[in-house]
Amino acid sequence: MTETTPQPAYVAVDWGTSSFRLWLVGTDGRVLAERRSGEGMTTAARTGFAEVLASHLAAVAAPAGLPVLICGMAGAKQGWIEAGYLDTPAALSDIPAAAVRIPGIEADIRILPGLAQREAMAPDVMRGEETQLLGAAGELGSGDHLVCMPGTHSKWVRLSGGRVAGFSTFMTGELFEAVAKNTILSHAIADAGAISGDNAAFRAAVARMVEKPALATSQLFSVRAGSLIAGLSPDDAKARLSGTLIGLEIAGALSLVADGTPVALVVSGGLGALYREALAAAGLSPTVIDADTAVRNGLAAGAKALWSL
Amino acid sequence: MTETTPQPAYVAVDWGTSSFRLWLVGTDGRVLAERRSGEGMTTAARTGFAEVLASHLAAVAAPAGLPVLICGMAGAKQGWIEAGYLDTPAALSDIPAAAVRIPGIEADIRILPGLAQREAMAPDVMRGEETQLLGAAGELGSGDHLVCMPGTHSKWVRLSGGRVAGFSTFMTGELFEAVAKNTILSHAIADAGAISGDNAAFRAAVARMVEKPALATSQLFSVRAGSLIAGLSPDDAKARLSGTLIGLEIAGALSLVADGTPVALVVSGGLGALYREALAAAGLSPTVIDADTAVRNGLAAGAKALWSL
Repeated sequence: MTETTPQPAYVAVDWGTSSFRLWLVGTDGRVLAERRSGEGMTTAARTGFAEVLASHLAAVAAPAGLPVLICGMAGAKQGWIEAGYLDTPAALSDIPAAAVRIPGIEADIRILPGLAQREAMAPDVMRGEETQLLGAAGELGSGDHLVCMPGTHSKWVRLSGGRVAGFSTFMTGELFEAVAKNTILSHAIADAGAISGDNAAFRAAVARMVEKPALATSQLFSVRAGSLIAGLSPDDAKARLSGTLIGLEIAGALSLVADGTPVALVVSGGLGALYREALAAAGLSPTVIDADTAVRNGLAAGAKALWSL
Repeated sequence: MTETTPQPAYVAVDWGTSSFRLWLVGTDGRVLAERRSGEGMTTAARTGFAEVLASHLAAVAAPAGLPVLICGMAGAKQGWIEAGYLDTPAALSDIPAAAVRIPGIEADIRILPGLAQREAMAPDVMRGEETQLLGAAGELGSGDHLVCMPGTHSKWVRLSGGRVAGFSTFMTGELFEAVAKNTILSHAIADAGAISGDNAAFRAAVARMVEKPALATSQLFSVRAGSLIAGLSPDDAKARLSGTLIGLEIAGALSLVADGTPVALVVSGGLGALYREALAAAGLSPTVIDADTAVRNGLAAGAKALWSL
């Protein structure tokens, strides 16, 4: 048996703040080669975006002139070139055409735009997640969906018939770090291990926030007080801190949609298990979509739209 | 006209984490001398509590053997001697009798206990505020009251007929510092001046939290997004951050009492104006009680109960 190796068709790049991922994709849609590195926007802003990309293209022996489609922070103001934002409400299918081409070089290299929500009390932005959404949309089908994309800045997106009706960013991951390291709670959680979703303190904290979100910053203090007067262990203290912030995020996102709106979780890695447990504690059974696959599918959809690949 | 100088009757001390205040009080209840310093628990734990107190007693020429009543963190585990906690629900009038006497010295020096709320989902502690409450209770009268004591860890106390039914600590001040300094919001609020309650962004953030507390950590991110895409000024960004955390605290405290429960604000200094504006934005008109006076009155009530002074 022989198998014909397909020709390279395009290069897809997910270029975040602190990570770089590149896929060389064949004419049949298969991934021919892959690269991962820590040369995110922060690093590349110093060493040069063109240089970082060129080194990885060389490493996968990409033919000269192959089109490259990029999403993520490389399109931020501090990135390679500013790729702007598409304003919500926005059709996901409108994203590719709004990509911005890198000028002054022969190869067709484009960066996808982010999404901006220009509301007085709820201005919001995303960059990178719109491409995951574009990739996830195919698995979700039409109708209304609430899509959770956990992370340092968790995004919850209200999709309706392939359009982003609106979205909300919750600072969950970043707040967890800031509170764990820079407040009095640091004493309570010192020496704690990794958080497990399979922890009663975590689930109870989530459920309490879904019921009483207004008590969030009081529940945070209860981590300290519980450690002082109720023998709360470091592991349970850390779980309660995490469950409080994730539960508050879930309560907030649910407050913006009709009861019963289907929930999807787009996630990769360890956060997936934690969010699945949190959503279960809130009474939700999400469709789970792998975030790595979603971003690659989104870049593929973009390449197809732009270059008929 | 001659005026008789009253004899010193006792010494009152408010000994916090980072501050020390002492009053020499006469037999007629008047303050004969006052001392303020930065020798709070943190400093005194190194230099010696007895030594710090002795130096201030000498400075006001207090007669040897005068009784001394102390409240605050000097009674914490890391303090001079642990003064423990009275468990809620607790009558304010029971606080003085639970004071703990410093052993091994002739003078009668006592430290008032804190309050502890031993509830599984809402363990909480206070130390120092219970004495402010004891002093404020005289101005509030009987019936139900919701008492707000703003600060690094804001306390909201549910008083009912002179008893503490329960209380909640909100980490507002400490979270403000941690978020302002250690998250992406630091960019948005760099170069901001002091926060004024007379700021539309502050009042709007408070009102939004009272209405939709579940969106708290999303509203925090909107400070960053507003700065990126909506020209939010550093002053307004800082005001929105502050209004979000204070508004969330107000929403949480209100969620635990019956509508229409009278609200009292026990506060001193600049925070007073900010909280008055915040409470007004939430539709509340609190009775305002000076916190410095309240703690002195609380210590006076304690001294009277303990030593019939």
